[in-house]
Amino acid sequence: MSQYKIVIDTLGSDKGPEAIILGAALALKEFPDLSITLVGPEELINEKIKEYEGDANRIKVINTNETITNYENPYTGIMNKPNASLVLAMKEAGKIEENYAGMITAGNSGAILMGSFRFLSDENKTRPCMAAVLPCANGSYTCLVDTGATIDCTSSQLHSFAHLGSDLMKKMYQIERPRVALLSNGAEPTKGNHLVKETYPILAEDKELNFIGNVEGNRALSGDADVLVCDGFAGNQVLKNSEGMAKQLITDIVKLSKMRNKPEFMEVAQYLMKTYDLGALGGGIVLGSRKVIMKARGNSDERAIVNISRMLINYANGEAVFTKEQLAEASR
Amino acid sequence: MSQYKIVIDTLGSDKGPEAIILGAALALKEFPDLSITLVGPEELINEKIKEYEGDANRIKVINTNETITNYENPYTGIMNKPNASLVLAMKEAGKIEENYAGMITAGNSGAILMGSFRFLSDENKTRPCMAAVLPCANGSYTCLVDTGATIDCTSSQLHSFAHLGSDLMKKMYQIERPRVALLSNGAEPTKGNHLVKETYPILAEDKELNFIGNVEGNRALSGDADVLVCDGFAGNQVLKNSEGMAKQLITDIVKLSKMRNKPEFMEVAQYLMKTYDLGALGGGIVLGSRKVIMKARGNSDERAIVNISRMLINYANGEAVFTKEQLAEASR
Repeated sequence: MSQYKIVIDTLGSDKGPEAIILGAALALKEFPDLSITLVGPEELINEKIKEYEGDANRIKVINTNETITNYENPYTGIMNKPNASLVLAMKEAGKIEENYAGMITAGNSGAILMGSFRFLSDENKTRPCMAAVLPCANGSYTCLVDTGATIDCTSSQLHSFAHLGSDLMKKMYQIERPRVALLSNGAEPTKGNHLVKETYPILAEDKELNFIGNVEGNRALSGDADVLVCDGFAGNQVLKNSEGMAKQLITDIVKLSKMRNKPEFMEVAQYLMKTYDLGALGGGIVLGSRKVIMKARGNSDERAIVNISRMLINYANGEAVFTKEQLAEASR
Repeated sequence: MSQYKIVIDTLGSDKGPEAIILGAALALKEFPDLSITLVGPEELINEKIKEYEGDANRIKVINTNETITNYENPYTGIMNKPNASLVLAMKEAGKIEENYAGMITAGNSGAILMGSFRFLSDENKTRPCMAAVLPCANGSYTCLVDTGATIDCTSSQLHSFAHLGSDLMKKMYQIERPRVALLSNGAEPTKGNHLVKETYPILAEDKELNFIGNVEGNRALSGDADVLVCDGFAGNQVLKNSEGMAKQLITDIVKLSKMRNKPEFMEVAQYLMKTYDLGALGGGIVLGSRKVIMKARGNSDERAIVNISRMLINYANGEAVFTKEQLAEASR
């Protein structure tokens, strides 16, 4: 008897649908309580799933070959492609009678946001945002919102993101009053661009939020804040720059190991690779939507899909979405 | 006979004037062609300089105890404190008959910008910006403009920063046609916030610039571009986040070394510390001003002042401001 049901969009990934379908098959093996609705090319799905002798009762397939590519305008994609896998997956995930725990997609980020607003918006019509939960220096986690869903933001959108991020950290990490900070160019309340300066008093006056002020870029992943609020442009820089820097330092260690003929240094590189190659780039959690939508990054492999499935199950149980080990494994 | 003259503002540093004065004394020892005008508390300067037996002919002191703090409004600081060390230093540096190579200050960034515009602006009244020259993965350098001088920018300001950065890289690194890129949230020309989208065609149409398009945050320090253009808010994030991430990974390596009882891993941490703790945070070069202004970071020690003095001499000679070794040394 399946306890958890999720929808997986098999199209839209850079690696093609195979990796995602294999990941779904592996997840079915690993989680006996799980059943999955796969959206995509039925023939291929049946063929690939069979290889893993998946339990047929736990699989449902919605057939389509249509997809919204990464180069497409998200709005026209969502509006003009009713048979796109993403659209069908979202409509399915939204069916009340099915009671899905959430969905997974590696599709076009803009289309995911647009679609979540159109097909899975909550009763308040909250503008969804894309969050990333990132590991911090002190072993805690910081929820970065927004990471690129809304590039140009208003202060009321940032205010809404602060609530969405705060709710996530409450639910997932049992933090009673998550510390919310604004990403700025200085810690002082007077620092910031127009948007940050306008948003500061709004967050400060909202007694439902535990607003702690501004945090600078060098403290973004220090663990000073549980929720770090910024527009999608700045969040995208923090997310991608963090990943880029981690990769750069790891590459330097590999080079140093060769240069100085010290193979033992590779142990350091491997350790950091597990901790920091988060697979966060292009991935994340859509907040503010009626169902949890996990965005897998475009080059996700089958293990990533298994891990994201586990995160959805954790989420449904009100447990931490990520643990350090899961993050490390997801990144391999 | 002194060939190079520079002005050093001794006030405004977090560490107090002592470290800067000692740095000036060391620089005089190290560079026999250098003479220095020190602005700050005369008594202290004379006392500290004496300890190093500096050559009196190569030292000039402009006495003041007034300073513009980091918590002060830059505009009112510059306008209302005619005896502030920064103001006196800039007026001195601007004296045509003195022919200074440039000046060094660890003061309030906003006031430096404001002051450079008021006292050292060029004939075109260019808006100055704060550049940082950062080491890249491939061993080259990228000039990041702006790093926080102008937080909210217009497209015409970004256009001007592109020229300033391009001129610097031409002069300093003998790059004939520096590759100029816009920092964005995606490589495609359609990606960006309003500002980036508005600036893109302006840079693309300017035939004096070698514009190569958008660069994402994860490629910021990849060496893909010689000049990376962005508003001061985004640039500040990239600069500080890069430094923060480098520190975080280095700290992890130190912990790993202890945890696994592998003291040899400290060699990796030391190597990365030299390469990445750039001292860039809060430092940089003011471009677009009549005289080169090097901003030392607030916690600069005496070695940093010696290194920045060397950079000014290099600059005056049309040589590379930074070499990897100098950067590494400056960061110690």
